[in-house]
Amino acid sequence: MEIHIIKEILKANDQIAEANRAQLAAAEVFSVNLMASPGAGKTSLILATARALKGRLRLGVVEGDLASSIDAERVAEAGLPVVQINTGGSCHLDAPMLSSALRHLDMSRIDLLFIENVGNLVCPANFALGTDIAVVVASVPEGHDKPYKYPGMFTKASAVVINKSDVSQIFDFDTDYFLRGLRMVNTDAPVFMLSCKTSTGVDEWAEWLYARVRT
Amino acid sequence: MEIHIIKEILKANDQIAEANRAQLAAAEVFSVNLMASPGAGKTSLILATARALKGRLRLGVVEGDLASSIDAERVAEAGLPVVQINTGGSCHLDAPMLSSALRHLDMSRIDLLFIENVGNLVCPANFALGTDIAVVVASVPEGHDKPYKYPGMFTKASAVVINKSDVSQIFDFDTDYFLRGLRMVNTDAPVFMLSCKTSTGVDEWAEWLYARVRT
Repeated sequence: MEIHIIKEILKANDQIAEANRAQLAAAEVFSVNLMASPGAGKTSLILATARALKGRLRLGVVEGDLASSIDAERVAEAGLPVVQINTGGSCHLDAPMLSSALRHLDMSRIDLLFIENVGNLVCPANFALGTDIAVVVASVPEGHDKPYKYPGMFTKASAVVINKSDVSQIFDFDTDYFLRGLRMVNTDAPVFMLSCKTSTGVDEWAEWLYARVRT
Repeated sequence: MEIHIIKEILKANDQIAEANRAQLAAAEVFSVNLMASPGAGKTSLILATARALKGRLRLGVVEGDLASSIDAERVAEAGLPVVQINTGGSCHLDAPMLSSALRHLDMSRIDLLFIENVGNLVCPANFALGTDIAVVVASVPEGHDKPYKYPGMFTKASAVVINKSDVSQIFDFDTDYFLRGLRMVNTDAPVFMLSCKTSTGVDEWAEWLYARVRT
């Protein structure tokens, strides 16, 4: 009974995700479901990407948080159109939340839409939003064992970003160990090691994303 | 209907949590539900605490992860009794999982039991385990805005540890801002800023915990 109901919820979510997908496609908006642990640097990656692609793509942002509008304020300060979703207690965004948010964005002015999910390396992976791709942001201080411990999230990734590369030495980050764990669950997602703080490696990621948007 | 069922699950969980509480009290084991984001340093804090209290308290550990036994192996290498729970897909431990784990521990040899929850700053706060206290581990690289973004978790904390204090300057960590956010949702939890890597501040935390266990 319980499992049946959860399946129904997921089915309803998937139907709305498909409607989101159709709406975004019709508006020619490329969309990214950005997922990570709390504090991995999702907002920083959005802002670094916006700087790297300035004048080439028009970005928009949907911010998902349990509470507060801290991230939306940072994004708005950078001059990007943004909608904040507060989920209350919910540990992830879902397709109906995105559907509501899309109504508040002028899609004709956006080429690339980032949807920053709730900071959580588990639950967001289970709820489709209708985006073109899913990107997982790991970060060096979290440690190199994350793909082994959170396989579900990394399985779903179209690309993986490892942020805060500037502190790799301080944290003894073993990139090979991380990659071996990632390849056990995801054989082909490209990996971008970068630092949003220093901008090292951001261009390579931004060019990959640009190519995805333009093809 | 849906909400009703979730309430029933929580009620069943709470009943088993009470049974765990009674079992732990009867065995004179003090228990800590340790919660944090992925990679904040929960396992490192357990190991640092074990070093600080060596010869004074006998520790035991229950490790909760979606997958892998990486943390349990680290704990076992340090010579502590440990049980690993793999939750599969579940984003948090629950009282029945702890109940099962307790059967595999010799409680007569443990004074202080750490239960390391799944790395997640949302879901674990909603499921009582039957522990004496709940401790939330934040970490400097995650940023100083976490209490504002994840109020539910910080509301439940009996104590808050801010780990990785050795990189506070590198990450421009604003402790006052963190504390203001924390005090909005939790007026009295003591806060311990420390580094498991350098051991700075660990003794103060360990002595506080020791006093809790012995009173």
